Amino acid sequence: MTKIRKIVLTEDEMPKQWYNLAADIHCPPFMGPDGPVPPEGWEKVFPMNLVEQEYSTQRWIDIPDGIRELLTRWRPAPMHRAYALEEALGTPARIYYKNESLSPAGSHKPNTAVAQAWYNKEFGTKKLTTETGAGQWGSALSFACSLVGIEAKVFMVRISFDQKPFRKLMMQTWGGTCIASPSMETQAGRDILAKFPDTPGSLGIAISEAIEAAVSDPSGETKYSLGSVLNHVMLHQSIIGLEAKKQLEKVGEKTPDVIIGCAGGGSNFAGLAFPFVSDKMHGAEIDIIPVEPYSCPTLTQAPYVYDHGDTAKMTPLLAMHSLGHAFVPPPIHAGGLRYHGMAPLVSKAVQEGLMTPRAIHQLECYEAGLLFAKTEGIIPAPETTHAIAAAIQEAKKAKEEGKEKVILFNFSGHGLMDLVGYDKYLSGQLTDYNLPQSEIEKNLEVLKGYPQP
Amino acid sequence: MTKIRKIVLTEDEMPKQWYNLAADIHCPPFMGPDGPVPPEGWEKVFPMNLVEQEYSTQRWIDIPDGIRELLTRWRPAPMHRAYALEEALGTPARIYYKNESLSPAGSHKPNTAVAQAWYNKEFGTKKLTTETGAGQWGSALSFACSLVGIEAKVFMVRISFDQKPFRKLMMQTWGGTCIASPSMETQAGRDILAKFPDTPGSLGIAISEAIEAAVSDPSGETKYSLGSVLNHVMLHQSIIGLEAKKQLEKVGEKTPDVIIGCAGGGSNFAGLAFPFVSDKMHGAEIDIIPVEPYSCPTLTQAPYVYDHGDTAKMTPLLAMHSLGHAFVPPPIHAGGLRYHGMAPLVSKAVQEGLMTPRAIHQLECYEAGLLFAKTEGIIPAPETTHAIAAAIQEAKKAKEEGKEKVILFNFSGHGLMDLVGYDKYLSGQLTDYNLPQSEIEKNLEVLKGYPQP
Repeated sequence: MTKIRKIVLTEDEMPKQWYNLAADIHCPPFMGPDGPVPPEGWEKVFPMNLVEQEYSTQRWIDIPDGIRELLTRWRPAPMHRAYALEEALGTPARIYYKNESLSPAGSHKPNTAVAQAWYNKEFGTKKLTTETGAGQWGSALSFACSLVGIEAKVFMVRISFDQKPFRKLMMQTWGGTCIASPSMETQAGRDILAKFPDTPGSLGIAISEAIEAAVSDPSGETKYSLGSVLNHVMLHQSIIGLEAKKQLEKVGEKTPDVIIGCAGGGSNFAGLAFPFVSDKMHGAEIDIIPVEPYSCPTLTQAPYVYDHGDTAKMTPLLAMHSLGHAFVPPPIHAGGLRYHGMAPLVSKAVQEGLMTPRAIHQLECYEAGLLFAKTEGIIPAPETTHAIAAAIQEAKKAKEEGKEKVILFNFSGHGLMDLVGYDKYLSGQLTDYNLPQSEIEKNLEVLKGYPQP
Repeated sequence: MTKIRKIVLTEDEMPKQWYNLAADIHCPPFMGPDGPVPPEGWEKVFPMNLVEQEYSTQRWIDIPDGIRELLTRWRPAPMHRAYALEEALGTPARIYYKNESLSPAGSHKPNTAVAQAWYNKEFGTKKLTTETGAGQWGSALSFACSLVGIEAKVFMVRISFDQKPFRKLMMQTWGGTCIASPSMETQAGRDILAKFPDTPGSLGIAISEAIEAAVSDPSGETKYSLGSVLNHVMLHQSIIGLEAKKQLEKVGEKTPDVIIGCAGGGSNFAGLAFPFVSDKMHGAEIDIIPVEPYSCPTLTQAPYVYDHGDTAKMTPLLAMHSLGHAFVPPPIHAGGLRYHGMAPLVSKAVQEGLMTPRAIHQLECYEAGLLFAKTEGIIPAPETTHAIAAAIQEAKKAKEEGKEKVILFNFSGHGLMDLVGYDKYLSGQLTDYNLPQSEIEKNLEVLKGYPQP
């Protein structure tokens, strides 16, 4: 057998440093009511060792041994050559994917969860709070906290809490506490419940509760944790792309022609793509494609503005592509891609012409996901199907052009906890959503009077 | 970092042959009404290339390249050193586990599913039928059939079909057909439904339907597939132990002192243990421990007899440990271990004193599973927790004895589709079942007049 399908690395070959794109791309600062927010402005929310990373412009940052040991629970992650998918498409392209679905929580999220849990433990944090929508991030953080021995408290959007009981059970199994948001445990939750006792909740409310629960602990030993968007999260995810480079080298491939990842907050895409952005800035010809749902077109249709990271405006202003903090996307099944904003570093890279975002409708994505499951064998998460759909578009284009392109995408997570979406697709119950331009404009009105990045 | 947590193999290092324990241990023949069943007796049920393997006593059998390519979708599987679990136990033992949970279906089952699907495809089979209880095997076969391009039809026990809709959705996503058993599609199903329209079904009925659906296809292009018990299944699983040997060698370990796997039909246990049984026959000192639930004590309390493999007596007689084909175990959550019989090769090895079976109650198993999830990070399937519980018992014993033992167990599958059991355990709703000796004796009465092996 000469074909290599699964390219593995030993632990010794796992990267010893993270790559920080903030060394090469400069984002406008966080803005508060009194101007740029200094690092100290975050001290009640995050531990200062992570805040330091958030502001760092150092290109390479050492991965502490303690975090390397946590990562080796499942890393290095294999890269696969998608021979069966290539054959089904009859494409001359060589398609590779980085498999982030093999972590115990089933996605790339634990890459930053274990790093954040470890830095918090070092700092003296006893408890981490966070919010979760569909449940991926809450599971990953519960997993990470159990490994380092600190508490995890997850505010899960009420409607998901009721509809997705298995995610809650995952968190409990790892010893995390998961409560439905809005809850009676915070002022923010009680205020909402007083007004709307039957509210299904929202990510915005859950963020407000999680931050309040952290900053209101008088001991100072409770901190808050965020699973995407911020620079330190992108940093921790860069291990994906750094491993991928070594793996491509092992099979004799040079720089890929196309790099693809789905983008909600941006972290799995950034993790794969950022180490290659630096190559592109030095002249390499690479199409770098963040893929988003047509129904939440942050990079493809929204402006680059200053906006809050959350609906409830608890965070400072971030310079990013945003549909407006009050935007509520249609109920597509890729819950992890239903975010109004985008990581500032991804947004800035798009502004600088280093990336070419693409939006794809959900029916095309499910079709791509099914083809992938039946050829390569792994059932993808609904979010991941967006990356697969774009990879298939590119492979078909390579066929039309008769070019032997190298396409690399991030397989961010498996879909074993999301099979209801496939069932709905197969039984014809899903639909695509076209967002009218007028609705986008209406949602952007909340940004009037905000500073410009 | 000097500790190696995850020991990987490259594709080149994946074994090129399976090991066949039937070369070293001789089982009594299958018995039919007219005496021993010759290979031709199976031709309507299985393709002859697999029947040949079933009867083979050749020690090493080449793995065809086509099957190796299918296996490399996820194999070689990593072996992990359980440093965190060791530390939590304060044991001087070195604990290793082979991680079979990383296959797309989440368990070891695809090792034989892809082999069986490939041999059937080679033979000209167009459709495979099978039964499934909790759904692991039905998912694995649907996965395998989708990769080789043949149809899969799975008869799923009615009560599981209704209670575990996600397993059915997995099969559908891979293109398999999953129907509730008893069904109107077979005579066996119609007969049962006429008498008991509200029956919850049983594995025995589902086997009857699956075999009938195969043998009654006049084209001869439909065959039946079994996921455990038979010799060719054990053969395909031997890749687990063969990989494990190479991995132990890589970290400088000699033969382990203790080898552990959970045992229902016996295939994941056999897969890890059989390649080491041969070492034991040549003088190596190894405790080889199949672990079963206290509530279904096939190896620890049932006699070695001739019995049918299924409740409905469709199969010939197999020489094995059996609680009697009509035995219905208490409703424990490890559905994959609720089987009245045991693989003939495992049974015979126990008879010959090569293995020392052990039974463990489910509460101890869930406790072990939770400790594992919180230390090593992966949530185990309820079946797998039995192996973990035994590994913990052995690690504690090594501590008492002050011995640096090497313990190796098989992590047969993850528990992401089985979280309800953890929820019930955590909320105090689970109980242990002590099976009275009188009930075991009563169930064995059906075997009166059967031949003796």
